[in-house]
Amino acid sequence: MYELYYWPGFPGRGEFVRLALEAGSIPYRDVACEEGAREIVARGLAEPCSTPPYAPPYLVADHMIIGQTANILLYLGEKHGLAPKDSAGRLWVNQCQLTIADITVEAHNTHHPIGSIAYYEEQQAEALRAATSFRANRIPKYLTWFERILAHRGDWLAGHSWSYADLSLFHLIEGLRFAFPRRMATVARDTPKVMALRDAVASLPQIAAYLASDRRQPFSNGVFRHYPELDGE
Amino acid sequence: MYELYYWPGFPGRGEFVRLALEAGSIPYRDVACEEGAREIVARGLAEPCSTPPYAPPYLVADHMIIGQTANILLYLGEKHGLAPKDSAGRLWVNQCQLTIADITVEAHNTHHPIGSIAYYEEQQAEALRAATSFRANRIPKYLTWFERILAHRGDWLAGHSWSYADLSLFHLIEGLRFAFPRRMATVARDTPKVMALRDAVASLPQIAAYLASDRRQPFSNGVFRHYPELDGE
Repeated sequence: MYELYYWPGFPGRGEFVRLALEAGSIPYRDVACEEGAREIVARGLAEPCSTPPYAPPYLVADHMIIGQTANILLYLGEKHGLAPKDSAGRLWVNQCQLTIADITVEAHNTHHPIGSIAYYEEQQAEALRAATSFRANRIPKYLTWFERILAHRGDWLAGHSWSYADLSLFHLIEGLRFAFPRRMATVARDTPKVMALRDAVASLPQIAAYLASDRRQPFSNGVFRHYPELDGE
Repeated sequence: MYELYYWPGFPGRGEFVRLALEAGSIPYRDVACEEGAREIVARGLAEPCSTPPYAPPYLVADHMIIGQTANILLYLGEKHGLAPKDSAGRLWVNQCQLTIADITVEAHNTHHPIGSIAYYEEQQAEALRAATSFRANRIPKYLTWFERILAHRGDWLAGHSWSYADLSLFHLIEGLRFAFPRRMATVARDTPKVMALRDAVASLPQIAAYLASDRRQPFSNGVFRHYPELDGE
Protein backbone atom coordinates (compact mmCIF):
# COMPACT_ATOMS: atom_id res chain seq x y z
CA MET A 1 0.00 0.00 0.00
CA TYR A 2 1.18 3.51 -0.76
CA GLU A 3 2.33 5.72 2.08
CA LEU A 4 1.86 9.47 1.73
CA TYR A 5 4.09 11.63 3.91
CA TYR A 6 3.04 15.22 4.42
CA TRP A 7 2.75 17.75 7.24
CA PRO A 8 -0.43 17.50 9.31
CA GLY A 9 -2.88 20.34 9.92
CA PHE A 10 -3.65 21.67 6.44
CA PRO A 11 -4.19 20.27 2.93
CA GLY A 12 -1.18 22.05 1.36
CA ARG A 13 0.76 20.41 -1.45
CA GLY A 14 -0.05 16.98 -0.07
CA GLU A 15 -3.62 17.54 -1.20
CA PHE A 16 -2.66 17.43 -4.88
CA VAL A 17 -1.51 13.85 -4.31
CA ARG A 18 -4.34 12.97 -1.95
CA LEU A 19 -6.99 13.99 -4.49
CA ALA A 20 -5.42 11.74 -7.14
CA LEU A 21 -5.34 8.79 -4.73
CA GLU A 22 -8.93 9.43 -3.66
CA ALA A 23 -10.31 9.96 -7.17
CA GLY A 24 -8.55 6.80 -8.35
CA SER A 25 -9.88 4.78 -5.38
CA ILE A 26 -6.29 3.86 -4.59
CA PRO A 27 -5.72 2.71 -0.99
CA TYR A 28 -3.05 4.64 0.92
CA ARG A 29 -1.75 5.29 4.37
CA ASP A 30 -2.02 9.01 5.12
CA VAL A 31 0.72 9.80 7.64
CA ALA A 32 -0.70 13.32 8.17
CA CYS A 33 -3.68 11.73 9.95
CA GLU A 34 -1.53 9.82 12.44
CA GLU A 35 -0.31 10.83 15.85
CA GLY A 36 3.21 12.28 15.77
CA ALA A 37 2.90 12.95 12.04
CA ARG A 38 5.27 15.92 12.10
CA GLU A 39 8.04 13.86 13.65
CA ILE A 40 7.44 10.90 11.34
CA VAL A 41 7.67 13.13 8.26
CA ALA A 42 10.78 14.94 9.54
CA ARG A 43 12.46 11.64 10.39
CA GLY A 44 11.76 10.35 6.89
CA LEU A 45 13.40 13.42 5.36
CA ALA A 46 16.57 12.87 7.38
CA GLU A 47 16.93 9.14 6.76
CA PRO A 48 19.81 7.95 4.57
CA CYS A 49 18.36 7.09 1.19
CA SER A 50 19.45 7.04 -2.45
CA THR A 51 16.52 9.25 -3.51
CA PRO A 52 15.97 11.62 -0.57
CA PRO A 53 13.06 14.04 -0.91
CA TYR A 54 14.03 17.68 -0.38
CA ALA A 55 10.65 18.38 1.21
CA PRO A 56 7.25 16.73 1.64
CA PRO A 57 5.06 15.49 0.12
CA TYR A 58 6.79 12.23 -0.63
CA LEU A 59 5.29 8.88 -1.48
CA VAL A 60 6.64 5.47 -0.53
CA ALA A 61 5.64 3.15 -3.36
CA ASP A 62 6.97 0.02 -5.06
CA HIS A 63 10.17 0.15 -2.94
CA MET A 64 10.75 3.73 -4.08
CA ILE A 65 10.69 7.00 -2.22
CA ILE A 66 9.29 9.55 -4.67
CA GLY A 67 9.51 13.27 -3.97
CA GLN A 68 8.15 16.41 -5.66
CA THR A 69 4.39 16.71 -6.09
CA ALA A 70 4.34 16.76 -9.90
CA ASN A 71 6.70 13.79 -9.97
CA ILE A 72 4.51 11.74 -7.64
CA LEU A 73 1.52 12.54 -9.84
CA LEU A 74 3.44 11.62 -12.97
CA TYR A 75 4.09 8.22 -11.40
CA LEU A 76 0.52 7.69 -10.20
CA GLY A 77 -0.89 8.98 -13.47
CA GLU A 78 1.03 6.45 -15.54
CA LYS A 79 0.47 3.56 -13.21
CA HIS A 80 -3.22 4.04 -12.50
CA GLY A 81 -4.47 5.66 -15.70
CA LEU A 82 -5.05 9.08 -14.14
CA ALA A 83 -3.68 10.75 -17.28
CA PRO A 84 -3.73 10.00 -21.02
CA LYS A 85 -1.55 7.06 -22.01
CA ASP A 86 0.00 8.58 -25.14
CA SER A 87 3.21 10.57 -24.90
CA ALA A 88 1.69 13.88 -26.03
CA GLY A 89 -1.19 13.66 -23.55
CA ARG A 90 1.06 12.59 -20.71
CA LEU A 91 3.43 15.52 -21.34
CA TRP A 92 0.53 17.95 -21.63
CA VAL A 93 -0.94 16.91 -18.27
CA ASN A 94 2.51 17.23 -16.70
CA GLN A 95 2.83 20.70 -18.26
CA CYS A 96 -0.50 21.76 -16.73
CA GLN A 97 0.56 20.33 -13.38
CA LEU A 98 3.85 22.24 -13.41
CA THR A 99 2.02 25.45 -14.23
CA ILE A 100 -0.32 24.83 -11.27
CA ALA A 101 2.81 24.31 -9.17
CA ASP A 102 4.13 27.69 -10.35
CA ILE A 103 1.08 29.66 -9.26
CA THR A 104 1.03 27.71 -6.00
CA VAL A 105 4.56 28.95 -5.24
CA GLU A 106 3.45 32.48 -6.07
CA ALA A 107 0.41 32.16 -3.79
CA HIS A 108 2.73 31.12 -0.95
CA ASN A 109 4.98 34.06 -1.77
CA THR A 110 2.14 36.52 -1.05
CA HIS A 111 2.33 35.80 2.68
CA HIS A 112 6.05 34.98 2.81
CA PRO A 113 7.75 37.19 0.19
CA ILE A 114 10.94 37.56 2.25
CA GLY A 115 11.30 33.89 3.11
CA SER A 116 9.76 30.94 4.88
CA ILE A 117 12.07 31.21 7.87
CA ALA A 118 10.41 34.38 9.25
CA TYR A 119 6.81 34.67 10.49
CA TYR A 120 4.15 36.40 8.44
CA GLU A 121 3.97 39.16 11.03
CA GLU A 122 7.63 39.93 10.42
CA GLN A 123 7.06 40.47 6.69
CA GLN A 124 3.54 41.85 6.62
CA ALA A 125 4.46 45.14 4.93
CA GLU A 126 6.15 43.25 2.09
CA ALA A 127 3.28 40.76 1.97
CA LEU A 128 0.78 43.58 1.42
CA ARG A 129 2.70 44.70 -1.67
CA ALA A 130 3.27 41.15 -2.96
CA ALA A 131 -0.39 40.19 -2.52
CA THR A 132 -1.57 43.33 -4.32
CA SER A 133 0.56 42.42 -7.31
CA PHE A 134 -0.47 38.76 -7.21
CA ARG A 135 -4.17 39.63 -7.08
CA ALA A 136 -3.98 42.22 -9.84
CA ASN A 137 -1.63 40.51 -12.27
CA ARG A 138 -0.99 36.88 -11.56
CA ILE A 139 -4.35 35.37 -10.62
CA PRO A 140 -6.04 36.69 -13.79
CA LYS A 141 -3.09 35.75 -16.02
CA TYR A 142 -2.96 32.15 -14.81
CA LEU A 143 -6.72 31.57 -14.64
CA THR A 144 -7.25 33.13 -18.06
CA TRP A 145 -4.66 30.70 -19.40
CA PHE A 146 -6.69 27.77 -18.04
CA GLU A 147 -9.90 29.34 -19.38
CA ARG A 148 -8.32 29.58 -22.83
CA ILE A 149 -7.35 25.90 -22.70
CA LEU A 150 -10.87 24.82 -21.75
CA ALA A 151 -12.38 27.03 -24.48
CA HIS A 152 -10.17 25.20 -26.96
CA ARG A 153 -10.42 21.66 -25.57
CA GLY A 154 -13.76 21.29 -23.81
CA ASP A 155 -14.65 20.37 -20.25
CA TRP A 156 -11.32 18.93 -19.10
CA LEU A 157 -7.68 19.94 -19.44
CA ALA A 158 -6.84 16.79 -21.40
CA GLY A 159 -8.98 14.23 -23.17
CA HIS A 160 -12.63 13.42 -22.63
CA SER A 161 -12.51 12.79 -18.91
CA TRP A 162 -10.62 14.02 -15.87
CA SER A 163 -6.89 13.65 -15.31
CA TYR A 164 -4.89 14.37 -12.16
CA ALA A 165 -4.26 17.93 -13.44
CA ASP A 166 -8.01 18.63 -13.30
CA LEU A 167 -8.06 17.50 -9.68
CA SER A 168 -5.13 19.80 -8.96
CA LEU A 169 -6.83 22.73 -10.68
CA PHE A 170 -9.81 22.12 -8.37
CA HIS A 171 -7.50 22.31 -5.35
CA LEU A 172 -5.84 25.45 -6.66
CA ILE A 173 -9.21 27.16 -7.08
CA GLU A 174 -10.32 26.06 -3.61
CA GLY A 175 -7.07 27.35 -2.13
CA LEU A 176 -7.31 30.69 -3.91
CA ARG A 177 -10.96 31.07 -2.88
CA PHE A 178 -9.98 30.41 0.72
CA ALA A 179 -7.07 32.87 0.63
CA PHE A 180 -8.59 35.59 -1.57
CA PRO A 181 -12.39 35.24 -1.44
CA ARG A 182 -13.10 38.80 -2.58
CA ARG A 183 -10.66 38.73 -5.46
CA MET A 184 -11.80 35.30 -6.61
CA ALA A 185 -15.44 36.40 -6.66
CA THR A 186 -14.42 38.98 -9.25
CA VAL A 187 -12.14 36.73 -11.27
CA ALA A 188 -14.73 33.92 -11.36
CA ARG A 189 -16.95 36.09 -13.60
CA ASP A 190 -14.29 36.04 -16.32
CA THR A 191 -13.39 32.37 -15.98
CA PRO A 192 -16.68 30.45 -16.08
CA LYS A 193 -15.16 27.33 -17.65
CA VAL A 194 -12.55 27.05 -14.92
CA MET A 195 -15.27 27.40 -12.31
CA ALA A 196 -17.39 24.77 -14.07
CA LEU A 197 -14.41 22.40 -14.02
CA ARG A 198 -14.03 23.06 -10.29
CA ASP A 199 -17.69 22.10 -9.78
CA ALA A 200 -17.36 19.02 -11.99
CA VAL A 201 -14.40 17.75 -9.95
CA ALA A 202 -16.28 18.37 -6.68
CA SER A 203 -19.14 16.28 -8.09
CA LEU A 204 -17.05 13.22 -9.00
CA PRO A 205 -18.45 10.50 -6.70
CA GLN A 206 -15.07 9.62 -5.16
CA ILE A 207 -14.17 13.27 -4.62
CA ALA A 208 -17.60 14.17 -3.22
CA ALA A 209 -17.28 11.28 -0.75
CA TYR A 210 -13.76 12.35 0.19
CA LEU A 211 -14.73 16.00 0.71
CA ALA A 212 -17.55 14.91 3.03
CA SER A 213 -15.24 12.62 5.02
CA ASP A 214 -13.02 13.45 7.99
CA ARG A 215 -9.99 12.67 5.83
CA ARG A 216 -10.41 16.11 4.23
CA GLN A 217 -8.57 18.72 6.28
CA PRO A 218 -9.77 22.33 6.31
CA PHE A 219 -7.53 25.07 4.93
CA SER A 220 -5.59 26.94 7.61
CA ASN A 221 -1.95 27.97 7.71
CA GLY A 222 -0.50 26.04 4.77
CA VAL A 223 0.39 27.22 1.29
CA PHE A 224 -3.01 28.92 0.99
CA ARG A 225 -3.70 31.27 3.90
CA HIS A 226 -6.44 33.76 4.52
CA TYR A 227 -5.29 37.10 5.84
CA PRO A 228 -8.15 39.56 5.18
CA GLU A 229 -5.68 42.42 4.71
CA LEU A 230 -4.09 40.60 1.76
CA ASP A 231 -7.39 40.26 -0.09
CA GLY A 232 -9.32 42.81 -2.15
CA GLU A 233 -11.60 42.95 -5.17
CA MET B 1 14.60 19.62 -36.18
CA TYR B 2 13.70 20.88 -32.74
CA GLU B 3 12.90 24.55 -32.26
CA LEU B 4 13.67 26.11 -28.90
CA TYR B 5 11.75 29.28 -28.08
CA TYR B 6 13.13 31.46 -25.30
CA TRP B 7 13.78 35.13 -24.61
CA PRO B 8 17.01 36.51 -26.04
CA GLY B 9 19.71 38.27 -24.05
CA PHE B 10 20.43 35.91 -21.17
CA PRO B 11 20.68 32.14 -20.57
CA GLY B 12 17.75 31.99 -18.10
CA ARG B 13 15.56 28.92 -17.94
CA GLY B 14 16.13 28.27 -21.63
CA GLU B 15 19.68 27.27 -20.75
CA PHE B 16 18.53 24.15 -18.89
CA VAL B 17 17.11 22.91 -22.19
CA ARG B 18 19.97 24.24 -24.29
CA LEU B 19 22.56 22.35 -22.24
CA ALA B 20 20.68 19.08 -22.73
CA LEU B 21 20.47 19.62 -26.48
CA GLU B 22 24.15 20.57 -26.67
CA ALA B 23 25.38 17.71 -24.47
CA GLY B 24 23.30 15.25 -26.47
CA SER B 25 24.61 16.63 -29.81
CA ILE B 26 20.98 17.14 -30.83
CA PRO B 27 20.50 19.68 -33.63
CA TYR B 28 18.10 22.54 -32.83
CA ARG B 29 17.01 25.92 -34.00
CA ASP B 30 17.66 28.43 -31.21
CA VAL B 31 15.13 31.23 -31.71
CA ALA B 32 16.86 33.37 -29.05
CA CYS B 33 19.78 33.81 -31.46
CA GLU B 34 17.59 35.15 -34.27
CA GLU B 35 16.63 38.70 -35.14
CA GLY B 36 13.26 39.69 -33.67
CA ALA B 37 13.44 36.80 -31.17
CA ARG B 38 11.35 38.57 -28.56
CA GLU B 39 8.49 39.09 -31.01
CA ILE B 40 8.72 35.54 -32.36
CA VAL B 41 8.52 34.07 -28.85
CA ALA B 42 5.64 36.36 -27.83
CA ARG B 43 3.73 35.55 -31.01
CA GLY B 44 4.14 31.83 -30.34
CA LEU B 45 2.70 32.24 -26.85
CA ALA B 46 -0.40 33.95 -28.21
CA GLU B 47 -1.12 31.55 -31.06
CA PRO B 48 -4.20 29.32 -30.80
CA CYS B 49 -2.99 25.87 -29.87
CA SER B 50 -4.26 22.82 -27.97
CA THR B 51 -1.19 22.78 -25.68
CA PRO B 52 -0.31 26.47 -25.19
CA PRO B 53 2.79 27.17 -23.10
CA TYR B 54 2.16 29.56 -20.21
CA ALA B 55 5.67 30.98 -20.59
CA PRO B 56 8.93 30.22 -22.38
CA PRO B 57 10.93 28.10 -22.77
CA TYR B 58 8.90 25.93 -25.08
CA LEU B 59 10.04 23.37 -27.57
CA VAL B 60 8.45 22.54 -30.91
CA ALA B 61 9.11 18.86 -31.47
CA ASP B 62 7.44 15.93 -33.24
CA HIS B 63 4.37 18.08 -34.06
CA MET B 64 4.03 18.98 -30.37
CA ILE B 65 4.47 22.24 -28.52
CA ILE B 66 5.98 21.33 -25.17
CA GLY B 67 6.12 23.85 -22.33
CA GLN B 68 7.64 23.89 -18.83
CA THR B 69 11.39 23.36 -18.55
CA ALA B 70 11.26 20.12 -16.54
CA ASN B 71 8.65 18.73 -18.92
CA ILE B 72 10.78 19.50 -21.99
CA LEU B 73 13.71 17.78 -20.31
CA LEU B 74 11.56 14.77 -19.39
CA TYR B 75 10.70 14.44 -23.08
CA LEU B 76 14.27 14.90 -24.32
CA GLY B 77 15.62 12.64 -21.61
CA GLU B 78 13.39 9.73 -22.61
CA LYS B 79 13.81 10.21 -26.32
CA HIS B 80 17.57 10.73 -26.44
CA GLY B 81 18.79 8.73 -23.48
CA LEU B 82 19.75 11.76 -21.37
CA ALA B 83 18.38 10.06 -18.26
CA PRO B 84 18.15 6.47 -16.97
CA LYS B 85 15.68 4.30 -18.88
CA ASP B 86 14.12 2.53 -15.88
CA SER B 87 11.12 4.05 -14.15
CA ALA B 88 12.86 4.64 -10.80
CA GLY B 89 15.82 6.39 -12.43
CA ARG B 90 13.63 8.48 -14.67
CA LEU B 91 11.51 9.64 -11.73
CA TRP B 92 14.59 10.38 -9.65
CA VAL B 93 16.12 12.59 -12.35
CA ASN B 94 12.78 14.39 -12.70
CA GLN B 95 12.69 14.86 -8.93
CA CYS B 96 16.17 16.41 -8.97
CA GLN B 97 15.16 18.65 -11.88
CA LEU B 98 12.05 19.89 -10.07
CA THR B 99 14.12 20.67 -6.99
CA ILE B 100 16.52 22.67 -9.16
CA ALA B 101 13.47 24.48 -10.55
CA ASP B 102 12.39 25.32 -6.98
CA ILE B 103 15.65 26.98 -6.00
CA THR B 104 15.69 28.77 -9.36
CA VAL B 105 12.32 30.36 -8.52
CA GLU B 106 13.69 31.35 -5.12
CA ALA B 107 16.79 32.88 -6.73
CA HIS B 108 14.53 34.98 -8.95
CA ASN B 109 12.51 35.98 -5.91
CA THR B 110 15.59 37.60 -4.32
CA HIS B 111 15.52 40.44 -6.86
CA HIS B 112 11.74 40.46 -7.46
CA PRO B 113 10.12 39.49 -4.11
CA ILE B 114 7.08 41.72 -4.72
CA GLY B 115 6.44 40.61 -8.27
CA SER B 116 7.82 40.48 -11.79
CA ILE B 117 5.69 43.37 -12.97
CA ALA B 118 7.69 46.03 -11.07
CA TYR B 119 11.35 46.92 -11.64
CA TYR B 120 14.06 45.82 -9.24
CA GLU B 121 14.61 49.45 -8.23
CA GLU B 122 10.98 49.63 -7.07
CA GLN B 123 11.42 46.68 -4.72
CA GLN B 124 15.05 47.03 -3.66
CA ALA B 125 14.32 47.33 0.06
CA GLU B 126 12.33 44.09 0.00
CA ALA B 127 14.97 42.46 -2.20
CA LEU B 128 17.68 43.22 0.37
CA ARG B 129 15.72 41.31 3.01
CA ALA B 130 14.77 38.45 0.68
CA ALA B 131 18.35 38.01 -0.55
CA THR B 132 19.72 37.98 3.00
CA SER B 133 17.36 35.14 3.87
CA PHE B 134 18.08 33.26 0.64
CA ARG B 135 21.85 33.50 1.13
CA ALA B 136 21.74 32.49 4.79
CA ASN B 137 19.13 29.73 4.70
CA ARG B 138 18.22 28.53 1.25
CA ILE B 139 21.49 28.28 -0.68
CA PRO B 140 23.11 26.10 2.01
CA LYS B 141 20.00 23.96 2.49
CA TYR B 142 19.61 23.17 -1.21
CA LEU B 143 23.31 22.68 -1.97
CA THR B 144 23.81 20.52 1.10
CA TRP B 145 20.95 18.35 -0.16
CA PHE B 146 22.78 17.84 -3.45
CA GLU B 147 26.06 17.24 -1.58
CA ARG B 148 24.34 14.53 0.49
CA ILE B 149 23.06 12.84 -2.68
CA LEU B 150 26.50 12.79 -4.26
CA ALA B 151 28.07 11.48 -1.05
CA HIS B 152 25.61 8.61 -1.22
CA ARG B 153 25.60 7.94 -4.97
CA GLY B 154 28.98 8.98 -6.36
CA ASP B 155 29.97 11.47 -9.04
CA TRP B 156 26.59 12.03 -10.69
CA LEU B 157 23.02 12.57 -9.46
CA ALA B 158 21.83 9.35 -11.12
CA GLY B 159 23.64 6.35 -12.50
CA HIS B 160 27.23 6.06 -13.66
CA SER B 161 27.24 8.93 -16.10
CA TRP B 162 25.62 12.32 -16.52
CA SER B 163 21.90 12.95 -16.94
CA TYR B 164 20.11 16.17 -17.84
CA ALA B 165 19.74 16.95 -14.12
CA ASP B 166 23.54 17.11 -13.78
CA LEU B 167 23.67 19.62 -16.62
CA SER B 168 20.98 21.66 -14.88
CA LEU B 169 22.85 21.54 -11.57
CA PHE B 170 25.86 22.94 -13.43
CA HIS B 171 23.74 25.82 -14.72
CA LEU B 172 22.29 26.46 -11.27
CA ILE B 173 25.78 26.68 -9.76
CA GLU B 174 26.95 28.99 -12.55
CA GLY B 175 23.91 31.20 -12.06
CA LEU B 176 24.34 31.37 -8.29
CA ARG B 177 28.06 32.10 -8.68
CA PHE B 178 27.20 34.94 -11.04
CA ALA B 179 24.53 36.37 -8.76
CA PHE B 180 26.15 35.76 -5.37
CA PRO B 181 29.93 35.37 -5.92
CA ARG B 182 30.88 36.16 -2.33
CA ARG B 183 28.29 33.85 -0.78
CA MET B 184 29.08 31.02 -3.17
CA ALA B 185 32.81 31.24 -2.38
CA THR B 186 31.89 30.44 1.22
CA VAL B 187 29.31 27.74 0.44
CA ALA B 188 31.64 26.01 -2.04
CA ARG B 189 33.93 25.02 0.85
CA ASP B 190 31.15 22.89 2.36
CA THR B 191 29.95 21.39 -0.92
CA PRO B 192 33.06 20.03 -2.68
CA LYS B 193 31.21 17.22 -4.45
CA VAL B 194 28.70 19.64 -5.98
CA MET B 195 31.57 21.82 -7.15
CA ALA B 196 33.36 18.77 -8.61
CA LEU B 197 30.19 17.87 -10.52
CA ARG B 198 30.06 21.43 -11.85
CA ASP B 199 33.65 21.06 -13.10
CA ALA B 200 32.93 17.62 -14.58
CA VAL B 201 29.99 18.97 -16.58
CA ALA B 202 32.06 21.91 -17.82
CA SER B 203 34.67 19.39 -19.02
CA LEU B 204 32.29 17.23 -21.06
CA PRO B 205 33.55 17.69 -24.65
CA GLN B 206 30.19 18.84 -26.03
CA ILE B 207 29.63 21.25 -23.14
CA ALA B 208 33.19 22.61 -23.26
CA ALA B 209 32.75 23.28 -26.99
CA TYR B 210 29.39 24.92 -26.39
CA LEU B 211 30.69 27.15 -23.58
CA ALA B 212 33.51 28.34 -25.85
CA SER B 213 31.13 29.08 -28.72
CA ASP B 214 29.15 32.24 -29.44
CA ARG B 215 25.96 30.24 -28.84
CA ARG B 216 26.57 30.59 -25.10
CA GLN B 217 25.08 33.84 -23.85
CA PRO B 218 26.58 35.61 -20.82
CA PHE B 219 24.53 36.01 -17.66
CA SER B 220 22.89 39.42 -17.36
CA ASN B 221 19.34 40.37 -16.34
CA GLY B 222 17.58 37.00 -16.42
CA VAL B 223 16.65 34.69 -13.56
CA PHE B 224 20.16 35.00 -12.12
CA ARG B 225 21.20 38.64 -11.66
CA HIS B 226 24.16 40.21 -9.98
CA TYR B 227 23.38 43.16 -7.74
CA PRO B 228 26.40 43.59 -5.43
CA GLU B 229 24.16 44.87 -2.64
CA LEU B 230 22.28 41.55 -2.59
CA ASP B 231 25.45 39.51 -2.08
CA GLY B 232 27.49 38.90 1.07
CA GLU B 233 29.62 36.21 2.63
